[in-house]
Amino acid sequence: MREGQGGSVIKSGSSNSGIPPTITGATRIVPHLAFPSGHLRTSTFFNPRCRELGIDAVLVPWEIAPEDLPGAWSALRLTRNVPGVVVTLPHKAAVAGLCEHRIGAAQSLGVANVARRNVDGTFVADMLDGVAFVAGLRRAGHEPKGRRALMVGAGGAASAIALSLAGAGVASLTIANRSHEKAEALAQTVARLCPGVPVSAGAPEAAGMELIVNATSLGMKPDDPLPLASDTIPAGSVVAEVVMNPDVTRLLVEAERRGAAIHRGVHMIKAQIDALIASIFGPVPVNA
Amino acid sequence: MREGQGGSVIKSGSSNSGIPPTITGATRIVPHLAFPSGHLRTSTFFNPRCRELGIDAVLVPWEIAPEDLPGAWSALRLTRNVPGVVVTLPHKAAVAGLCEHRIGAAQSLGVANVARRNVDGTFVADMLDGVAFVAGLRRAGHEPKGRRALMVGAGGAASAIALSLAGAGVASLTIANRSHEKAEALAQTVARLCPGVPVSAGAPEAAGMELIVNATSLGMKPDDPLPLASDTIPAGSVVAEVVMNPDVTRLLVEAERRGAAIHRGVHMIKAQIDALIASIFGPVPVNA
Repeated sequence: MREGQGGSVIKSGSSNSGIPPTITGATRIVPHLAFPSGHLRTSTFFNPRCRELGIDAVLVPWEIAPEDLPGAWSALRLTRNVPGVVVTLPHKAAVAGLCEHRIGAAQSLGVANVARRNVDGTFVADMLDGVAFVAGLRRAGHEPKGRRALMVGAGGAASAIALSLAGAGVASLTIANRSHEKAEALAQTVARLCPGVPVSAGAPEAAGMELIVNATSLGMKPDDPLPLASDTIPAGSVVAEVVMNPDVTRLLVEAERRGAAIHRGVHMIKAQIDALIASIFGPVPVNA
Repeated sequence: MREGQGGSVIKSGSSNSGIPPTITGATRIVPHLAFPSGHLRTSTFFNPRCRELGIDAVLVPWEIAPEDLPGAWSALRLTRNVPGVVVTLPHKAAVAGLCEHRIGAAQSLGVANVARRNVDGTFVADMLDGVAFVAGLRRAGHEPKGRRALMVGAGGAASAIALSLAGAGVASLTIANRSHEKAEALAQTVARLCPGVPVSAGAPEAAGMELIVNATSLGMKPDDPLPLASDTIPAGSVVAEVVMNPDVTRLLVEAERRGAAIHRGVHMIKAQIDALIASIFGPVPVNA
């Protein structure tokens, strides 16, 4: 068959329907690099939002094993209708390293969750997990400024969240991690980048904390242990998750039972979508 | 953000709506290799049909310049949720060469319009343009068997169409092409593969013909010359197109004016979709 240049295809479907726009030859493709990819949900937020904004693009899962990433990456440079990629576990550090340019938290931390492709095939990495997490907290009415914060985890997302919490002016930040060494290194990095905020590595001990954040993947699987001893959670604190599937983790169930306010992982992704789209396609209009 | 394994996403939208299913992390991605890609329309047929059949997959344009194909190809091997690719100009011969295995017309002709990815990352090329063209003719009530046929063109799609027309038992097949040498070579190939059918290279002269096929891309652009002198088209003949955009080419307008039956390029793509899907995902149920 030969497909000519004369026609046009009417975009169908109303906004907010959860359905991406009709994919045509003109649609730009944003691969979502992950391994595995079956559990990803970002496209179900990203694609309707693109349609709402009149951007003809779709986010599609792109399942690449860690050892295959460099080979797969070189091909993404060659694909003309790929304006950028979204990046999830386990590729966040590797992608930051593969990009020619790094900005924002990707520059500070060496991890990326988005990369914009320039017309010459070079990529600019950015890391939006931290700003999205803090934006999600604020949208839900939980201002982090002045709170004593405990964060569990020291991986890619955790690093960015720690940096953003410190940047938002928490009263103090304690970082707990299975590997204490990694927590220590992250605490030092954040303390260096945000002087004036007391940041330290410590135990996953929630007593006395006002903001408690799970920034590990514990809670994704039904038989995962809790990221911290839930009986130390103070009533009146805010317990926040990065895990968004399941919607309410066991940690949040326990936190609610103890009288804490809970903040689900979905808040972060909702705040993240516009930031991802802006990073790839340029500024998103306010109130769009 | 961390996306766990507990939840599920409801697929929304009814069939035949022209909208692909909601893309989730479990959706398989079929890149449509082309250059350029902006004019492609196959996804608008392929994606709704997948949904109808309950196949969680989307065809997405994948714009690769010819010189970049080998590099891009090696990455498609590495992408675990790519079950196959659809191939359009100018990549049909190159992809047939890149695949480890060739079946059907891809084996006979060295051109491919689809390739299935095996779990080990090897690919099987097939070429469905010919069978789809003949199936489209038959669905529209134009049995090619016993007709004197003229086909203009000798490229990838034309080769496959010539082979299928001969296989369907046309009374004779004349192949006309700007490069007579190429037409001659194709005629010899088809004659060798389909002994008993008179196949020859000749002029784009429609007088005396009962089935006239444009298998070139002429007609895609408004200022393209006609592929053959329209004043030679006999009343009562069938004039068929592979160009599907615009829907009715200038050749078809002229043919209709002269009392010929016309057969649009869209028939071929509609017949092609199930064949493409079956080639990538396995047999499509009859009457589905």
